[in-house]
Amino acid sequence: METLTEEILTTVIKKRPAISHKGTFGRAVLIGGNAQYGGAIIMSAESCLKSGAGLVTVITAKENHAPLHARLPEVMVLDWNEPKALRTIIESADVLLIGPGLGLEEHSLALLKFVLSRQEKQWLVIDGSAISLFAQEKLTLPHPDKTVFTPHQMEWQRLSGIAIADQNEITNHTYQKKLAATIVVKSHRTEIYTNKKNYRCPLGNPAMATGGTGDTLAGIITSFLAQFAAKDAAVCAAVYLHSYIGDLLSAKNYVVLPTTISAAIPQYMYHFSN
Amino acid sequence: METLTEEILTTVIKKRPAISHKGTFGRAVLIGGNAQYGGAIIMSAESCLKSGAGLVTVITAKENHAPLHARLPEVMVLDWNEPKALRTIIESADVLLIGPGLGLEEHSLALLKFVLSRQEKQWLVIDGSAISLFAQEKLTLPHPDKTVFTPHQMEWQRLSGIAIADQNEITNHTYQKKLAATIVVKSHRTEIYTNKKNYRCPLGNPAMATGGTGDTLAGIITSFLAQFAAKDAAVCAAVYLHSYIGDLLSAKNYVVLPTTISAAIPQYMYHFSN
Amino acid sequence: METLTEEILTTVIKKRPAISHKGTFGRAVLIGGNAQYGGAIIMSAESCLKSGAGLVTVITAKENHAPLHARLPEVMVLDWNEPKALRTIIESADVLLIGPGLGLEEHSLALLKFVLSRQEKQWLVIDGSAISLFAQEKLTLPHPDKTVFTPHQMEWQRLSGIAIADQNEITNHTYQKKLAATIVVKSHRTEIYTNKKNYRCPLGNPAMATGGTGDTLAGIITSFLAQFAAKDAAVCAAVYLHSYIGDLLSAKNYVVLPTTISAAIPQYMYHFSN
Amino acid sequence: METLTEEILTTVIKKRPAISHKGTFGRAVLIGGNAQYGGAIIMSAESCLKSGAGLVTVITAKENHAPLHARLPEVMVLDWNEPKALRTIIESADVLLIGPGLGLEEHSLALLKFVLSRQEKQWLVIDGSAISLFAQEKLTLPHPDKTVFTPHQMEWQRLSGIAIADQNEITNHTYQKKLAATIVVKSHRTEIYTNKKNYRCPLGNPAMATGGTGDTLAGIITSFLAQFAAKDAAVCAAVYLHSYIGDLLSAKNYVVLPTTISAAIPQYMYHFSN
Repeated sequence: METLTEEILTTVIKKRPAISHKGTFGRAVLIGGNAQYGGAIIMSAESCLKSGAGLVTVITAKENHAPLHARLPEVMVLDWNEPKALRTIIESADVLLIGPGLGLEEHSLALLKFVLSRQEKQWLVIDGSAISLFAQEKLTLPHPDKTVFTPHQMEWQRLSGIAIADQNEITNHTYQKKLAATIVVKSHRTEIYTNKKNYRCPLGNPAMATGGTGDTLAGIITSFLAQFAAKDAAVCAAVYLHSYIGDLLSAKNYVVLPTTISAAIPQYMYHFSN
Repeated sequence: METLTEEILTTVIKKRPAISHKGTFGRAVLIGGNAQYGGAIIMSAESCLKSGAGLVTVITAKENHAPLHARLPEVMVLDWNEPKALRTIIESADVLLIGPGLGLEEHSLALLKFVLSRQEKQWLVIDGSAISLFAQEKLTLPHPDKTVFTPHQMEWQRLSGIAIADQNEITNHTYQKKLAATIVVKSHRTEIYTNKKNYRCPLGNPAMATGGTGDTLAGIITSFLAQFAAKDAAVCAAVYLHSYIGDLLSAKNYVVLPTTISAAIPQYMYHFSN
Repeated sequence: METLTEEILTTVIKKRPAISHKGTFGRAVLIGGNAQYGGAIIMSAESCLKSGAGLVTVITAKENHAPLHARLPEVMVLDWNEPKALRTIIESADVLLIGPGLGLEEHSLALLKFVLSRQEKQWLVIDGSAISLFAQEKLTLPHPDKTVFTPHQMEWQRLSGIAIADQNEITNHTYQKKLAATIVVKSHRTEIYTNKKNYRCPLGNPAMATGGTGDTLAGIITSFLAQFAAKDAAVCAAVYLHSYIGDLLSAKNYVVLPTTISAAIPQYMYHFSN
Repeated sequence: METLTEEILTTVIKKRPAISHKGTFGRAVLIGGNAQYGGAIIMSAESCLKSGAGLVTVITAKENHAPLHARLPEVMVLDWNEPKALRTIIESADVLLIGPGLGLEEHSLALLKFVLSRQEKQWLVIDGSAISLFAQEKLTLPHPDKTVFTPHQMEWQRLSGIAIADQNEITNHTYQKKLAATIVVKSHRTEIYTNKKNYRCPLGNPAMATGGTGDTLAGIITSFLAQFAAKDAAVCAAVYLHSYIGDLLSAKNYVVLPTTISAAIPQYMYHFSN
């Protein structure tokens, strides 16, 4: 297992090409947020937008449209009960994220199945309740080589069957090989298992142990996959940047709110792109 | 009566354990906010979140969902007319707060009674209109030893029957012993009566005399009860920190808005944790 | 006509009494904001709150509740179609403001008439469309000695019948005597006509010539009437402070947004209270 | 083709006349924002307001009212399904903008046709989906000499029939002469074709390649047309200022969000007005 260093940031976060437009930096489509957990998908959209995806669309419950636009007019939004528009938008996506605040309702499951049935060229990030649904319903991945799971340890237990106490590099790697997808196992020292190599992020701190931290990381991963060509490195850089900013902010704050991390992303990405 | 000092902050606000997750810092569930007073529960959620509770859920009237999420996507929200989900969430809570902006309607009373009937392992903070309802309906506490009342002087009069003019350490303490709960009597010099000892906060200032200051304090108390083991000390530290920040801000502002206090909490908690 | 100076601020903005509570600083009730002009009453509430009124309630169209609470959880809100609650709240007010974004509908007029019929001990500020309605319907004041009109020049023409070109100290004063209310005639050099004396504010600048500046001033006047005993001086100080902050901000900004003025109020009130 | 310099800013952004009121700086009416793309018209309103238009009204889908007012209480709003009020407001406008987030629905087209049928004295800015609709429906301009199109390169292809690869000064100018309107062709080096002369903006950078950048520019153009007499110069100054601020912000941020540009407008307009 390789320990990540700051080098992953300077490697991945390239200076943007001078001649470019918003399409150059990818279309990210984020699906999640039921009535109760709507904030989760808003936080994912916030970090996704601020880490540079060219166009961000959120597909979510009606209740979340107004607060999303009050915070982020830059983001487009679609009612997750409009199947036709949903199909068009998902097909036009470069990266899909499903899960933050998705819930465990029947409709949540229907959305997950629909996304899995539609994924073609797109990378797909599966987070939060979508992981639990995936495990519970024993679903299969159409394109494991273009899929990233971002479980915390309990979700990883549900997905892999490996009890938290038994999760280690060997057991995790074994199950990752079975899934053949990229796995980001979130904990105080997040680990990334890819089809080629495994990585550990040496950063992170307990001030980040608050609701929404994972949703924010999922948004950054999605955004980096939309922009950067080397996908394994993009996932690693997203994890590293998230913890890097969290560590800096924890040197002044007892608790580091996810939206405070998101607000700082543009300046730190700039720092590492030069 | 012991006068609190800064020491209460350094004693209570511990450095967080390196290996931890959001569950480590407690699940706080906040109930309140009718259509008219919805801002009250939003302010409680804001201070609760920013003072470090790991997971914050608000149970409130539908009207308050959008503004809550526009300000605080980190917070989860539940319609207070969904009895089934309500039960599950209340049972999963580590600390419950009921009262800010709750109102005096029948439904407000039903919620208060439901919470009292469901409290088991959880600490319970009773604030605002929930205190008035408790007094008016002559309710009883299932677990006084795990209950905190946070009345201002008029609410304390309603609860204890002691006229404001007659409220003093002796009369207050006598009634506290009858209730056997912790009482935070809010005034320009807030006093805390616990089952073991009584405390006075020497801080606070008239710039804080504005609507929402009490809701914000209730949120901090709830958050500290969720995170810190010594419960009496946690309540004292919450009161002290709230006034401490208010005093600092009043050195630059004629009026100190509650949300301005909340915004400053993470940095001052950090300061006192080191 | 007396030209106001900074002295009006140091005279009016008193250090707050050490022993006080939110009730000490007055209950302000603000009525306005139809579906189209909802932002107006939000801006009045923002300035009223930030200039120190103890408790602020807004009575407005349902559409404005969510954005009001998203910006200002400190403010309470009531649907202006709930006649019963409306009566109670108006009667409990120390100061009433009616007009910002009120509109010229039948319901707007009904609200204005209701307020005029209920005013007793309270001071009343009549602004914006309420002035136009008052003029058009030839209404009369129940308590002119406790009423402030805040017209801009066109509204003053409607109210007084004096064409803008003919508005000057003599014509204005003559009509003020007929109304026997306080009149704040807003222009690039706002003038205040009271039952005792007339004042001119020497401050103000064209960067403030933007929608909402008047709504913001109305909120400050309301707040000062709620807190300070000398009512004429309170109105003068509100006008002066509003332009004073506007002038400072215009030294850095081509346009001074009303909400930027409101954000700066607490620190400038502090400055002049010491 | 003339390359613009900073001089365009000092020429256009005049010190405001001392005696003035909000009407002096123009009434801007912005039409756009369906349920999915509501953020677009909010961003246009944000930049329009912050670049100094005296009064800004947004005509949009109901869903966008609350988030618009949560961000911008200074802006008025009208449901785009109220034909009567719509007519009055459009007729009172000094400048009209149609297109940001308008969508391609039948109702979008009806609004565009209505605006074209009502334009008289007003300048009209046609942006985003309104350009696509205009092209697709082969509409004609009532007043090309008072109309500005703001297409990105793909929209310009739709409007002019010139494939992106073939767009250059000669082909663009030829089609501009046919339209007889002002054309702002947005790209990494935006060009402006007017009835008198053509200009190129030498500024702009890839950090601005994100959704909403164009909506923000459209709002500034609208605002400048509302305030400044020399219309060609006003359009050029708007384009230049937008990129100027974008370049400054890109020296610290990997991605420059449109709303971050808007927030900085008042101070940079001040800078160039002196």
